[in-house]
Amino acid sequence: MDAIDAHPFDEATRLTGEPGRYHGQTAARYANMIGPFGGIVAATLLRAVVDHPNRQGDPLAFTVNFVAPVGDGRFAIDTKVVRTNRSTQHWIIELSQAGEVAATATAVFASRRETWSSTELRCPSVPEAKTGIKVAGDGLPAWLKCYDICLFQGGIPPLLAIENEDAFVRSVTLQRMRDEPPRPMDFLSLTAICDTFFPRIYVRRSGLVPAGTVSFTVYFHVDSEKIATIGDEAVVGIARANRFYNNYFD
Amino acid sequence: MDAIDAHPFDEATRLTGEPGRYHGQTAARYANMIGPFGGIVAATLLRAVVDHPNRQGDPLAFTVNFVAPVGDGRFAIDTKVVRTNRSTQHWIIELSQAGEVAATATAVFASRRETWSSTELRCPSVPEAKTGIKVAGDGLPAWLKCYDICLFQGGIPPLLAIENEDAFVRSVTLQRMRDEPPRPMDFLSLTAICDTFFPRIYVRRSGLVPAGTVSFTVYFHVDSEKIATIGDEAVVGIARANRFYNNYFD
Repeated sequence: MDAIDAHPFDEATRLTGEPGRYHGQTAARYANMIGPFGGIVAATLLRAVVDHPNRQGDPLAFTVNFVAPVGDGRFAIDTKVVRTNRSTQHWIIELSQAGEVAATATAVFASRRETWSSTELRCPSVPEAKTGIKVAGDGLPAWLKCYDICLFQGGIPPLLAIENEDAFVRSVTLQRMRDEPPRPMDFLSLTAICDTFFPRIYVRRSGLVPAGTVSFTVYFHVDSEKIATIGDEAVVGIARANRFYNNYFD
Repeated sequence: MDAIDAHPFDEATRLTGEPGRYHGQTAARYANMIGPFGGIVAATLLRAVVDHPNRQGDPLAFTVNFVAPVGDGRFAIDTKVVRTNRSTQHWIIELSQAGEVAATATAVFASRRETWSSTELRCPSVPEAKTGIKVAGDGLPAWLKCYDICLFQGGIPPLLAIENEDAFVRSVTLQRMRDEPPRPMDFLSLTAICDTFFPRIYVRRSGLVPAGTVSFTVYFHVDSEKIATIGDEAVVGIARANRFYNNYFD
């Protein structure tokens, strides 16, 4: 019997070791300009909880702080359950390399129960796929080959000029995106895909500027049943900045 | 010589003890329906870093996870510097009562340097103060007396009905707010004031529903020089929900 090859995403986020003390290895396919793509680091931190045998419920809120640059190579991930309540569970996660902490994260997991629900956020109107610009080309970091991203608004030249529709809200990006090759969506790939947007300053200043993520938060408005219904379809995302101020922006 | 009385906010967030291991006491003036107002808890957690002698820079990103209900009475706060870089510093903070962790937080502090800056977020048009509704009345939790809040949009009856201007974006609240009595704004009071909005579900469902904050993140787009220019003037804030889904919402 032949082994089924794992998807590159699952290879890149693979952890070995004991529950609570895992080991991993950065993957060349998900390399950024320096070190690994931040989204794959975030997904790997979340995997350390998702795969933990004591984990209860689905991820609800997840914050990663990038404490120091993560280098290529091996790393360790330590997880700690802070508290398990009836419906929520709280975790602290640390990624370290050579004994030095490079990223910390906190995660709230929750067992949802069916209650009144309502989505207020409006789905943006998405143009036809053929009108978008595929993000590809020489000089882009390796990890972008692991995604099929179609830009409709707010790229960086020569990929797509900014459509300056509104003088006050300029750095807005609208894109369709999925894993390449396609992979069924789960909490891990959703976490990583949230980080595929170019830093807003590239869009706003129409070019590359040295920039790194210091803090990254995802709120999950979906549970595992619902997320499974996405399958390997592309999802639509919007990113926008509120403020750039003295070396930091959102 | 008479002692100058501290502002109630500073009394409520006062910490004693050693750097890295502080003690505090909940304040009746900032009581919520059960336990203390979440905003004062968040501000006290941030104070444990702001007042720490090894702290470098101003707060940049701050996430609090409410792990268990904080009860009235004494609590301990432990802070740990995860890493100090040239321009950023990363902290983990834990609040415990009777040896049990009740809240965790992570904070990124940063020393900013002057660079290209731009504010994309548009300031909402704020009606004249006299057209707003002051948040006051019997049956409201004690902490609301510590704020002067003027609602322009998105209250809960009988305070102010929802102005359903847009069928898709319903639970939006616009309010002017300041400490009562007035107090010069700093990172601590800004943190607390960010949590003064009613839970979105009150607004959307036009009434009180049992709801508690599980996770709360503040990005500070301001440094200590700039924040000092606010003085004790009121600030304007907007809150909106993206999605309510099976027991959790944002």
